[in-house]
Amino acid sequence: MAESLGIALVGCGTVGTGVARILTEHAGRMTARAGGRSLVLRHLVVRDLAKPRDVVVPGAAVGTDWRAAVADPAVQIVVELIGGTTIAKDVVLAALAAGKHVVTANKALLAAHGFELFEAARKAERVICFEAAVAGGIPIIRALGESLAANQITGIQGILNGTSNFILSAMAESGTSYSDALKEAQRLGYAEADPTLDVDGSDAAHKLAVLAQIAFGVTAQPGDIEKQGIAGIDAMDTRFAAELGYTIKLLAEAWVADKTVALHVAPVLLRRTDPLAQVRGAFNAVLVTGDVVGETLFQGAGAGMMPTASSVVADILDIAVGRAQKTFAAAKLWSGKTEFALAPSDKVRSRFYLRALVRDEPGVLADVCRCLANERISIASIIQHEAVESPALSADLPAGRTGENQPILMVPLVIMTHVAETGRFRAAAKALAKLPGVCGPAVFFSVDD
Amino acid sequence: MAESLGIALVGCGTVGTGVARILTEHAGRMTARAGGRSLVLRHLVVRDLAKPRDVVVPGAAVGTDWRAAVADPAVQIVVELIGGTTIAKDVVLAALAAGKHVVTANKALLAAHGFELFEAARKAERVICFEAAVAGGIPIIRALGESLAANQITGIQGILNGTSNFILSAMAESGTSYSDALKEAQRLGYAEADPTLDVDGSDAAHKLAVLAQIAFGVTAQPGDIEKQGIAGIDAMDTRFAAELGYTIKLLAEAWVADKTVALHVAPVLLRRTDPLAQVRGAFNAVLVTGDVVGETLFQGAGAGMMPTASSVVADILDIAVGRAQKTFAAAKLWSGKTEFALAPSDKVRSRFYLRALVRDEPGVLADVCRCLANERISIASIIQHEAVESPALSADLPAGRTGENQPILMVPLVIMTHVAETGRFRAAAKALAKLPGVCGPAVFFSVDD
Repeated sequence: MAESLGIALVGCGTVGTGVARILTEHAGRMTARAGGRSLVLRHLVVRDLAKPRDVVVPGAAVGTDWRAAVADPAVQIVVELIGGTTIAKDVVLAALAAGKHVVTANKALLAAHGFELFEAARKAERVICFEAAVAGGIPIIRALGESLAANQITGIQGILNGTSNFILSAMAESGTSYSDALKEAQRLGYAEADPTLDVDGSDAAHKLAVLAQIAFGVTAQPGDIEKQGIAGIDAMDTRFAAELGYTIKLLAEAWVADKTVALHVAPVLLRRTDPLAQVRGAFNAVLVTGDVVGETLFQGAGAGMMPTASSVVADILDIAVGRAQKTFAAAKLWSGKTEFALAPSDKVRSRFYLRALVRDEPGVLADVCRCLANERISIASIIQHEAVESPALSADLPAGRTGENQPILMVPLVIMTHVAETGRFRAAAKALAKLPGVCGPAVFFSVDD
Repeated sequence: MAESLGIALVGCGTVGTGVARILTEHAGRMTARAGGRSLVLRHLVVRDLAKPRDVVVPGAAVGTDWRAAVADPAVQIVVELIGGTTIAKDVVLAALAAGKHVVTANKALLAAHGFELFEAARKAERVICFEAAVAGGIPIIRALGESLAANQITGIQGILNGTSNFILSAMAESGTSYSDALKEAQRLGYAEADPTLDVDGSDAAHKLAVLAQIAFGVTAQPGDIEKQGIAGIDAMDTRFAAELGYTIKLLAEAWVADKTVALHVAPVLLRRTDPLAQVRGAFNAVLVTGDVVGETLFQGAGAGMMPTASSVVADILDIAVGRAQKTFAAAKLWSGKTEFALAPSDKVRSRFYLRALVRDEPGVLADVCRCLANERISIASIIQHEAVESPALSADLPAGRTGENQPILMVPLVIMTHVAETGRFRAAAKALAKLPGVCGPAVFFSVDD
């Protein structure tokens, strides 16, 4: 009979409860999948002993002292599910120092301290597995690191934040405003009370940093990834995009050029027929381009108790079988070894969608076009509806007034450009925002055809 | 310096050429991904030495004698890419007996002889890897066997035959007939001169048998999988489906009920918004349902030189790293061990689309409805256009004549049913085909909502 594997679960929130349920309710299946080794949940470490829990694990010690759980000689795997980058880091380092393997779902921790943690793991001759850290139940970590190992990855486009995708889907499907869609997401539990890290692109950027480590070996710090969130997207942008045949999605993207890789998170206009455009609600998806395989798409639940727990348990099984140890040794993640340099996203070439509210006066369009021409950006098409023809649009316009307290007429102007360097486009947009005929900030998103 | 790995490539057609190109052109990358072991292509075994080849492999012996290549002590991995189930079987068994690991893309071989081959591999303490056998570049074998190991798979729906999907996409997008779409597929190289195995569902059934082994441990012989091909799909079916909001796809499906699994390959009407409905051209996709993770979709190139070679090389790398050996030992594939029994697809419950050409005479509809009612099948909706209103449809109708040589008027009748057992529906369709008012065979497809 093969030796059993002891597990300490540090953090027993949503995902932790899911992990405990799988290990407890499907113990026989786990043993079979682990090559005959039984997986024994020995410790549940919680923050508040008094809080009721949705799962009962016979035989497991429930306590608040993670150090005791990690130190238990009967524990071989520590599962870190408390989140954050402070205590979580202590837990992982202590576990490795005590000779335990680590499974974590913590993208922020990996993005911030991957190098230090992986060095510690190599020294301890133990592994860190993290399939659940990106895109929940979608096995994108294994896809990049193992399944597509014959390839040099040349591009990644991911819908990696379910909250943002839920909001954008609601805006596209029911024409609702950003703030109403956010409220609905909060009501349904898809968004936190403070949704900042989801909607400003931070969460997606952490996940992109983890993917970029696997695909390119680059260690991107938060500041290395250009971020643009979804809060600036107006209901009229959703409508204009639809009118032009596009859907707006928050994408985390990595693009290789020569030996550089540019990483950014931003709303992008995708053709309605693009597979990523069709990913709705809180789902996640990742489109990976490899130099051998071409485009491959992975799609599924990006969050939630059981999908994320599915990935955590897959990691536990990989350790039990001995596969994770082989992968860890071969992959040399966060070792600083890479042939790629990080490039600023300024050099990435793209078409752009620009939407500004402009005064309905002679000369304004000429000024706007001049800003683009100055950066050698060529205009592909322009939409400017007459306000009177489009009551739905004019309803969105802020009431503008001149100094003399006379109402002025503003119209939304939408420009689709030909391909240009992002940096040039940003410069043009900046100049454009200073024009006297342009009211309020102009929004711009790249367009993926 | 880690030991190098010698490889013999038996079969150097399209995929073999791709494999040779990756190993030769990206040798440095391969060594890095193989944990420092260099992958050395030592033998190319070809059928015809005189035939020009698109790849030059310095240092490799090119010959026609697979036995010599397999026996070479400098070879540790034999890659079988000749196809078929006769010589290919000899090659695999000889390789295992000689102590070599095997990588194959041969779904027909696995479906027919998996049990014998895997027994031989276990005895020889070597592995058989076969990521390329199903869905080309899509890593569905690893997904089912490793990434989703926490799950009991409860359903698989796959577009596993690129030729069929190309034809159905062409029919849906340009309204062309089956035979014209097939000709176009042949012209573009997506279909063989004899397309039978692709369009009759045999190829998809072989692949489904392989997936069913991994997901359920069941060994399905060709006769265990109900098959319906795409040749019976008329342009009018594509149009009716579109009118009803559906797209027709050839799906390979596995559905679990209690401890049984039903396997079948057939055209299915999918809602236009279903992710599988949007898989176009020669692409493949697999929608996997797991009891923990929910639905996960994998999509990519299902065939072709480089995508398939990407999967073959991923297997070689897995062996080099030592991961494949761990997986092989734990997975116990084709060992006869399963908790699932194969169920006839008769018990699978589904809605159905039925299309028949009927005489435009009193009583015919009543007779048709009676056939369904006799099997307790409830009708959800009926479409019967007047022929005169729909010249595009009537153009498809064969010219019918009565005994008195008078033209008779036939109209297509389309019925969407409520959920019924497949067996009952088949019985109803059989009875219906015998009705005097029904001209020619009725076609029916299940409907997935």
